[in-house]
Amino acid sequence: MKLAVVGAGAVGRAVCSLAPEYGHTVVALSDSRGAAIDSEGVAFEDVLARTERGEPVGEETPDEALDAPYDVLVEATPTTLGNAEPGFSHVRRALARDRHVVLANKGPVAQRYGDLRSAQRESNGRVLFEATVAGAIPALSTIADLGAENVTAVRGVLNGTANFILSRMAAEGLDYEHVLTEAQDLGVAEADPAFDVDGTDAALKCVILANVLADATTADADATANDSTAAKDGSTTAGGSSGRTYTIADADVAGIEGVPPSALDLAAEDGRTIRLIGEVSDGAVRVGPRLVPEGGTLAVTGTQNIVQLETRHAGRLNISGRGAGGPETATAVLADVGRLESERGS
Amino acid sequence: MKLAVVGAGAVGRAVCSLAPEYGHTVVALSDSRGAAIDSEGVAFEDVLARTERGEPVGEETPDEALDAPYDVLVEATPTTLGNAEPGFSHVRRALARDRHVVLANKGPVAQRYGDLRSAQRESNGRVLFEATVAGAIPALSTIADLGAENVTAVRGVLNGTANFILSRMAAEGLDYEHVLTEAQDLGVAEADPAFDVDGTDAALKCVILANVLADATTADADATANDSTAAKDGSTTAGGSSGRTYTIADADVAGIEGVPPSALDLAAEDGRTIRLIGEVSDGAVRVGPRLVPEGGTLAVTGTQNIVQLETRHAGRLNISGRGAGGPETATAVLADVGRLESERGS
Repeated sequence: MKLAVVGAGAVGRAVCSLAPEYGHTVVALSDSRGAAIDSEGVAFEDVLARTERGEPVGEETPDEALDAPYDVLVEATPTTLGNAEPGFSHVRRALARDRHVVLANKGPVAQRYGDLRSAQRESNGRVLFEATVAGAIPALSTIADLGAENVTAVRGVLNGTANFILSRMAAEGLDYEHVLTEAQDLGVAEADPAFDVDGTDAALKCVILANVLADATTADADATANDSTAAKDGSTTAGGSSGRTYTIADADVAGIEGVPPSALDLAAEDGRTIRLIGEVSDGAVRVGPRLVPEGGTLAVTGTQNIVQLETRHAGRLNISGRGAGGPETATAVLADVGRLESERGS
Repeated sequence: MKLAVVGAGAVGRAVCSLAPEYGHTVVALSDSRGAAIDSEGVAFEDVLARTERGEPVGEETPDEALDAPYDVLVEATPTTLGNAEPGFSHVRRALARDRHVVLANKGPVAQRYGDLRSAQRESNGRVLFEATVAGAIPALSTIADLGAENVTAVRGVLNGTANFILSRMAAEGLDYEHVLTEAQDLGVAEADPAFDVDGTDAALKCVILANVLADATTADADATANDSTAAKDGSTTAGGSSGRTYTIADADVAGIEGVPPSALDLAAEDGRTIRLIGEVSDGAVRVGPRLVPEGGTLAVTGTQNIVQLETRHAGRLNISGRGAGGPETATAVLADVGRLESERGS
């Protein structure tokens, strides 16, 4: 498939680096200042050399990248709240050209799910977004495989930075500020860690999960109203034609900034520890520090993430792994690209 | 989809019970003595009443069920070793009619993978087998999603009975025979537990995983030789056209019968415990009792299973859940049926 990659951060660059191995060609790569476009495949090493010199990724304009002859737009610009721009407009522009979209950017799926569904219904393109929830963990495709209507609740550890900080605080008895500084030194936390530690990032992922689960209640209506097999085809897509959608405003969110070492000590005396747990159940989205059994399934350590699915017929399913990182998230993007390719082929 | 279910054990019955909820119709159900056939849908309550009275599932012959007007044959007869009969012949007969097959029976995939691939190549039907490895855990579809060529090793706890026994021995300091009897009383172990405790069942699952991973090395050759998108379509299928295949004879297998409570005590003193671990790596298949960290990822308790995938670009992925049970395994069967349906629809 021919890919246009919008956003040249860790994920965008990893997609460019791995795409050839997966049999795909990156025909355009843009950042906020410029774009490299080549229908035979962008010379990624040249791009890296340019960015190391502080230059834009290429000499074309970002706008030209959106007009490139691609099959799939990979939207990997930073997540924004509010109206999720400019990500949402990139998606709409691709769909208007009947092209597919694979999102790594959480904004459009978390903040404008209804608009995303509307735009998809008027297009021959599809929107997939496995990479928006928990990096390498195949949360959305597993939900699609089970049938979203068979998943009654989802909970988990969905932010590696917050989990690293809580794990270290518990293991070493250190306070929040100390461990945060350490995490920043290690590159585990960003210079501005607000979204990771205040629960926003985990909440956005939960909102996306809530949108996918809510879709299931409207999927039947959609299947009769719509020729496409979007709701049944083994991958999660923006599907339903009506029904409730969620944004971050619907989430009840608390972060880890207020967790004192003494709370972790008290928990440990009781065989428990504290994790930042996100949960979607009974139509509610909640994120906050919770007591969990020490050494238990949810008490993953370091930057690990875990997604726990409660199913109607198959009990509880746990999936843990790397929830962030360029190559890890890129594998989720490329799995979505693979799904789009196989649908085209079959 | 119209299903013919061959085998009326826990899995076959659960498929019949859940199929309507998934939008499918069971048009035939057979056991070794008889069959119930109805193109409008077998009356499953009547079947249950018959079997409770000790009668065959229906008045037709098992052979007639194989000629019923189905879209997908669900093969859920007991796993047999050697030439994997009669399961393999059921599969071949369905493929000869250009029908799809979904296997819960491990025999044909573990013992005759090459024959299975050959039969599939000559058919318009496809063979899927998610249910053969670890029940509700989506091991094979996750491997397909990642791309089998990106999975460098698989290991895990793949037999719930053996895991229950080892967990109980470690927790209570009881000996093997005592816990086995307890497990039989609870229905966790069968009257003849040989395949579970001697490692055979776990080894068959590992052999299936080894066959799927080995396929990846021949998938490229297959893709050029073959119009179908079988090797790339987001679900694991018997795909490659050549290359090594494995049977149980290729596995190095040890069971848990010889594990004394003293070994578990010694392990515990060192912060470790013992689990029956199956592993596929570097082309070798091994099953045996291994030391693992207590409370660590592989030390799942009770009848839980876990599958751990080592990936090329996304680190380690762990999936745990219920590895056996009628409804749990039936959900994997029905996920495969859903994949076949979406391919037909797209």
